Amino acid sequence: MEYPSRLIEQAVEEISRLPGIGKKTALRLALHLLKQPEESSERLAHALVELRTKVQYCRQCHMISDEEICGTCKSAYRDHSIICVVEDTPDVLAILSTAQFNGLFHVLGGRISPIDGIGPDQLRIDTLVNRIKGGSVDEVVLALSATMEGDTTAYYLTKMLRPKGVKITTISRGIPVGSELVFADEVTLGRSIQARTEVKD
Amino acid sequence: MEYPSRLIEQAVEEISRLPGIGKKTALRLALHLLKQPEESSERLAHALVELRTKVQYCRQCHMISDEEICGTCKSAYRDHSIICVVEDTPDVLAILSTAQFNGLFHVLGGRISPIDGIGPDQLRIDTLVNRIKGGSVDEVVLALSATMEGDTTAYYLTKMLRPKGVKITTISRGIPVGSELVFADEVTLGRSIQARTEVKD
Repeated sequence: MEYPSRLIEQAVEEISRLPGIGKKTALRLALHLLKQPEESSERLAHALVELRTKVQYCRQCHMISDEEICGTCKSAYRDHSIICVVEDTPDVLAILSTAQFNGLFHVLGGRISPIDGIGPDQLRIDTLVNRIKGGSVDEVVLALSATMEGDTTAYYLTKMLRPKGVKITTISRGIPVGSELVFADEVTLGRSIQARTEVKD
Repeated sequence: MEYPSRLIEQAVEEISRLPGIGKKTALRLALHLLKQPEESSERLAHALVELRTKVQYCRQCHMISDEEICGTCKSAYRDHSIICVVEDTPDVLAILSTAQFNGLFHVLGGRISPIDGIGPDQLRIDTLVNRIKGGSVDEVVLALSATMEGDTTAYYLTKMLRPKGVKITTISRGIPVGSELVFADEVTLGRSIQARTEVKD
């Protein structure tokens, strides 16, 4: 498409780099912003830059946080003897919004996937092992995607954590096999975390 | 949803103000940006602010432009005796991309819609009349949406322009009635602008 202005072209270019947004949608969004007051674009731009430059990750659970130790890890109302292991940030948000889990979290930062060149060393497994070594953790809940990579990661973690004498559970497979955790609805995800079952060898 | 960070919440809030983007998509986009290099967010933010603060509109046709008079209006290769009247910027882009029209444009900035409180005075009809008064325009092509508001606007413009002795045509209604101009495919839109018919009283 021919653009009437370099500014429009540049904006469309940058917006359409976002996942799931094509050139037509990008143009629609750019033209929408043009009809809004100047502050709208400025607030949006400011939020994006602030997010990217100021965001921190919790030193304990690796969750996105505004502080060194996140609110969940610091909370006195949560059960510090249970750690729910997830692949990424959206999984934590999804589980929090079910209000069915009152323990802590551990964000691995992905899952073992040889095809993408992601091995156990790329994941934050060492800090998880350290947290369990402390001795105050009774149970580790594996809340990983029901995919081959998720299962591989679960298997690897089980092998690593079993010798530490901690109880290992996995959320029930109420969610469709082959699907990603974040796409499950709250009720299904809530039930599957309540009906978690112990991992057998 | 509960957000782990004020920065995430703020970014989701701002992104989800965009049309057609809900909180879940906004969160996905925000988390995507977090995984990209810092320049990605900065370039996007910069493009949005530049677009909104620096964009200009052509003094003649009201099209988005980088200069006072846009490239289309200045072009010596275009037929300055035909003006295609459209509702908004995306319509110009859609017609340009058909490569079937070689005249100039005039962007009204909307269509007459009493229900939205938009009357002829809110549209840039006076500057259109002035352009025609110059005497160098032979034909005005009405390329408005095939909706009641589009038809009302066409009717009003015909009444206004007829006394100026200019030929008034309308793009053929090959596009489905009730649909917006921008959603037509290029071939249909290209044909409908070629097969334009003179407006009868």
